[in-house]
Amino acid sequence: MPIDLRSDTVTKPTVKMRNAIRDAAVGDDVYGEDPTINHLEQLAAKIVDKEAALFVTSGTQGNQVAVLSHTQRGDEVILEEHSHIFSYETAGLSTIAGVQARTIKGVNGQMPISDIISAIREDDIHCPKTALICLENTHGDSGGRILPLHHMEEVYRVSRKYRVPVHLDGARLFNAAVGLGVDPKEITKYTDTVQFCLSKGLSAPMGSILAGPKDFIEKARKWRKMLGGGTRQAGIVGAAGIIALEEIIGRLQEDHLHAKKLAEGLARINGIDIDAEGVETNIIMFSIARSGLDADEFIKKLHGHEILANSAGPYRIRFVTHRGIATEDIDTAIEAIKRIFAEVKVRV
Amino acid sequence: MPIDLRSDTVTKPTVKMRNAIRDAAVGDDVYGEDPTINHLEQLAAKIVDKEAALFVTSGTQGNQVAVLSHTQRGDEVILEEHSHIFSYETAGLSTIAGVQARTIKGVNGQMPISDIISAIREDDIHCPKTALICLENTHGDSGGRILPLHHMEEVYRVSRKYRVPVHLDGARLFNAAVGLGVDPKEITKYTDTVQFCLSKGLSAPMGSILAGPKDFIEKARKWRKMLGGGTRQAGIVGAAGIIALEEIIGRLQEDHLHAKKLAEGLARINGIDIDAEGVETNIIMFSIARSGLDADEFIKKLHGHEILANSAGPYRIRFVTHRGIATEDIDTAIEAIKRIFAEVKVRV
Amino acid sequence: MPIDLRSDTVTKPTVKMRNAIRDAAVGDDVYGEDPTINHLEQLAAKIVDKEAALFVTSGTQGNQVAVLSHTQRGDEVILEEHSHIFSYETAGLSTIAGVQARTIKGVNGQMPISDIISAIREDDIHCPKTALICLENTHGDSGGRILPLHHMEEVYRVSRKYRVPVHLDGARLFNAAVGLGVDPKEITKYTDTVQFCLSKGLSAPMGSILAGPKDFIEKARKWRKMLGGGTRQAGIVGAAGIIALEEIIGRLQEDHLHAKKLAEGLARINGIDIDAEGVETNIIMFSIARSGLDADEFIKKLHGHEILANSAGPYRIRFVTHRGIATEDIDTAIEAIKRIFAEVKVRV
Amino acid sequence: MPIDLRSDTVTKPTVKMRNAIRDAAVGDDVYGEDPTINHLEQLAAKIVDKEAALFVTSGTQGNQVAVLSHTQRGDEVILEEHSHIFSYETAGLSTIAGVQARTIKGVNGQMPISDIISAIREDDIHCPKTALICLENTHGDSGGRILPLHHMEEVYRVSRKYRVPVHLDGARLFNAAVGLGVDPKEITKYTDTVQFCLSKGLSAPMGSILAGPKDFIEKARKWRKMLGGGTRQAGIVGAAGIIALEEIIGRLQEDHLHAKKLAEGLARINGIDIDAEGVETNIIMFSIARSGLDADEFIKKLHGHEILANSAGPYRIRFVTHRGIATEDIDTAIEAIKRIFAEVKVRV
Repeated sequence: MPIDLRSDTVTKPTVKMRNAIRDAAVGDDVYGEDPTINHLEQLAAKIVDKEAALFVTSGTQGNQVAVLSHTQRGDEVILEEHSHIFSYETAGLSTIAGVQARTIKGVNGQMPISDIISAIREDDIHCPKTALICLENTHGDSGGRILPLHHMEEVYRVSRKYRVPVHLDGARLFNAAVGLGVDPKEITKYTDTVQFCLSKGLSAPMGSILAGPKDFIEKARKWRKMLGGGTRQAGIVGAAGIIALEEIIGRLQEDHLHAKKLAEGLARINGIDIDAEGVETNIIMFSIARSGLDADEFIKKLHGHEILANSAGPYRIRFVTHRGIATEDIDTAIEAIKRIFAEVKVRV
Repeated sequence: MPIDLRSDTVTKPTVKMRNAIRDAAVGDDVYGEDPTINHLEQLAAKIVDKEAALFVTSGTQGNQVAVLSHTQRGDEVILEEHSHIFSYETAGLSTIAGVQARTIKGVNGQMPISDIISAIREDDIHCPKTALICLENTHGDSGGRILPLHHMEEVYRVSRKYRVPVHLDGARLFNAAVGLGVDPKEITKYTDTVQFCLSKGLSAPMGSILAGPKDFIEKARKWRKMLGGGTRQAGIVGAAGIIALEEIIGRLQEDHLHAKKLAEGLARINGIDIDAEGVETNIIMFSIARSGLDADEFIKKLHGHEILANSAGPYRIRFVTHRGIATEDIDTAIEAIKRIFAEVKVRV
Repeated sequence: MPIDLRSDTVTKPTVKMRNAIRDAAVGDDVYGEDPTINHLEQLAAKIVDKEAALFVTSGTQGNQVAVLSHTQRGDEVILEEHSHIFSYETAGLSTIAGVQARTIKGVNGQMPISDIISAIREDDIHCPKTALICLENTHGDSGGRILPLHHMEEVYRVSRKYRVPVHLDGARLFNAAVGLGVDPKEITKYTDTVQFCLSKGLSAPMGSILAGPKDFIEKARKWRKMLGGGTRQAGIVGAAGIIALEEIIGRLQEDHLHAKKLAEGLARINGIDIDAEGVETNIIMFSIARSGLDADEFIKKLHGHEILANSAGPYRIRFVTHRGIATEDIDTAIEAIKRIFAEVKVRV
Repeated sequence: MPIDLRSDTVTKPTVKMRNAIRDAAVGDDVYGEDPTINHLEQLAAKIVDKEAALFVTSGTQGNQVAVLSHTQRGDEVILEEHSHIFSYETAGLSTIAGVQARTIKGVNGQMPISDIISAIREDDIHCPKTALICLENTHGDSGGRILPLHHMEEVYRVSRKYRVPVHLDGARLFNAAVGLGVDPKEITKYTDTVQFCLSKGLSAPMGSILAGPKDFIEKARKWRKMLGGGTRQAGIVGAAGIIALEEIIGRLQEDHLHAKKLAEGLARINGIDIDAEGVETNIIMFSIARSGLDADEFIKKLHGHEILANSAGPYRIRFVTHRGIATEDIDTAIEAIKRIFAEVKVRV
């Protein structure tokens, strides 16, 4: 089995999850009768301290349903220019919801507060109405950086002042909470609605949660139906989600330690440019530009060492640690990369 | 446990399915690496004799992805006026795909061929382009009626002539095949693309299949992502889908026999108006208008007898048979309804 | 100059209109500063007894803006299956507004009241919300038939009961009013909003009016901007609109008399099937099926007699009378058609 | 009459235009029979050296029709973050066309070439397809700056390489051409399609032109219909457009000289911050932040001097010169502003 550093989405369910799935009490969730899903939704709402929660089949679906429920066609949504919603959800917010994306360049995923304020439109016949601010915590494309609590609080304060709600894409919310050493509620108290994934680091086979006010979730339930996310005996996957929330959150710390160790190892390799201090959670980004190799060539060489990775730019590599990566895999990976770099001529 | 005649969507997975789910080989399906899903998709494509297939989380999602893949915004889709796509998919085809629904009144779900032909638009600057004809077999709202092969063939011939593709909403395709006593391929050879459900009568906990030409499925894969239907270790549910296809199709005949028996029993009750001959698959519709009760009142009385049902109009009841309904449940239901009708004054 | 019976859209502005246009006081209408448009909008609102009115560049734009202002994405709109909005506005209501068309087959443009009632959806997670009922008076595709006041009143009563607003496509509203011999207000009192054309029979070179409640028109103004209907010195065309409303409505009666005369002449020609009594305004539809000619061939023969017409089906012809058609043109047309029919072998 | 420096959209038609309008030969443009519009479209196509052209009622409509014709739902469009299409067209590209806006921060309206290249997406199931690059020349929000020919050429080269077409929002194309001292063709040869306004500086009462390849214009004609831009005797306004193109382009130079003179006058006033060298066409932007007045207060004071202006930010003023502004108005305006500044305490 290769060391798969491509993404934490490759995590497989635990044995306990598989057993829970087999034994799950199920019912028709479109009728609201799946006891496992009902339990999961209550548990999830409690964890993020929101009135209600909704099981969705993926993070993308949770985000799209959130946009649909917060906005009307012709509105505008503020989001960071490398956010997942903008970059990797195939333009769904414009195609499905009919709203315009207003992107702001962030630093480590944090949009400057003054830029958010100037992006909020005044009432004008020429302009869409600003209807939503989206945050992403942790922020994937900046390398799993955590939006600090004071940043979330400031955005929230702006959102109250200008009466524009905040949605948090918390696909990796628990990585942020673990990284900050706080209860997830401390993060989600600064957002009206939040989506978080049960898959990824939490290792459930599929599914995400959208949480928020009761009437919002009521609307969301209908939009989920439109997207084809209303499923039947969903408890089959929901059972794994419950275990993910109850038992896996705690172990994310391990992924972060692995990532740190890996980053530090990479930092010691001549020719790799990496901000090891910026590795706050389970994602590592680094440049191999000085190796003379491009990302595709480097990834191919990694393959030769039974290591899988994704690129994050023409000369940029992304590693993600997760439950399937053991401490010794980190050592193996560092050794392998050392060997690759030993064979190339590094530029200064 | 009540006798649940509301829908075949309430079927729960079999023990064998649950075990298969627990033991399923899984991988990240967004990367195309879930072996169980890959197997399921190949199996499914073969069963309906199409080049390729795609797992989707629900029948609604399969239909919406089909519309998105067949059309461009501004086009028009021809469908029967009581079809599921038009009636129960929350206007998705207009909201997501931006296409206009052109409905035709059918008889037992069959749109008159001449009406289809006149609904196909000529090229005109005032008019949308006719981009798709949708059929539904079996046709839910007419009481699970089967579109006969000659009808499908005629529609297909029209579609070839006018170069408008056909999509089949085959949520209950196998009920149609079993009812006709033909291989499913005999039905799907008259359609470009088809969606069928693994849940419903087939008893998988969730999921449907969209099948069609290879390039169509390639496009569909991207639209599925937009709707949030791209999931990770989907093999967990896919494992049940394989068993559904391999082992459950055969037993649908039993549901049909139960439905027939139930319909004939109802036909003998004074005050019930039912076309028992029209009960071709696992859905029964009947009128209780002459009972003096409306549908809600009647359903409440059924509840008193531990029987669950849905209405299909102010004075119309729908029963659906499925794996959870045994032969003795049919007898029990008929007896209960006899007793209800014994207490009301039936009009002539 | 040929006798142009294709449509009343071919009417050219009067000399008075042209002079008014040349001399029009104008300003920037996006700033609300065009005095001529402001006058026109006030005049128009008064004529149909609505709080406010908005100049739009065409009837299609007025209808689309109305749908956008009345609905939200994911809603459903009830309309007659041969209505202009559904048939000739290139699927705009689905593409732009993201709403689903629910069509009902009408008789002479009148949708059966019971069908409207059953088309109004109950609140259900599977179904779009019914957000608008559209009427068309006069109804073009049925041959300019007038929706009688009692029909409009009944629809309005239904709309109040079920809290679904009514929009009237009154592209030829004044033909209806003249045909009924009533003030336009008697018609528009049964609708929340109305669109009527200044072009067509009224002979202005372009433009229509959308009228309704003040807050509705406020919303409409923004949607008009989105469609590119916000124009600058619009008074140039608005000046003609004022004259159209003040001076041309009265002469529509003449078009109706011409249409009647033409219809009666056609009825006397052996081989033409026409309901001359059904000709209530300025549109005439008739079948030439028994002539052995199809519509294209017949129209070509009309060309030979310097007469222009449109088809309304493979064997159906539409004539429209208007300001450009004089009494003697009617005689000429009848004579020409007599001659055409004299040369063909009419079937019985 | 006040000195109206708000926008060149306030220009009124010339006497010659008004006479031409009165005498215009007209026909039904939906049938393609308006000789004036046909002449205008041919003339316009020739001026920008494109195969075909289409009259639209506004610049917004021209741009929206262009986006609709170049893209399919789910695509992405690259545009400058202060472009008109993104900022002032009420999110039309997302709401109507269902495409996502990808904005890039420009300098004087010029998006860095390397940013354009990195914004073009690779084929990826998570990402929309990059379908269009939009430029704006002159660029309004940067103060009417001209995109130099070499910039347009570079963008065009990128667009060829990556096979992504270019649309030019040339609402003020002729200001750019006059400013550069080149034939408009020298600009439009670096774009696939172009929209330019007949109103604004060119003084026609309304209307714009969309020009491009023949098959593109064919598609555009249908999308224009959907937006309600298909009008009837459009020659009435088209007649003014012809004169605008034949006679007014030449005089834009005068507006530029006025703007320059005004900018230089403002630059000499202590407390005004202005880049007078950056005033390349007919738009002037300047900051009054050091005056202690905000934009609204300053505009109110201008009113007292019978001068109208718009703000372009909380402390930013925009002046636009046009046919309605005479040389002496420039002097009057400078004097008035001097007097306003004489009364405030300017910060250093």
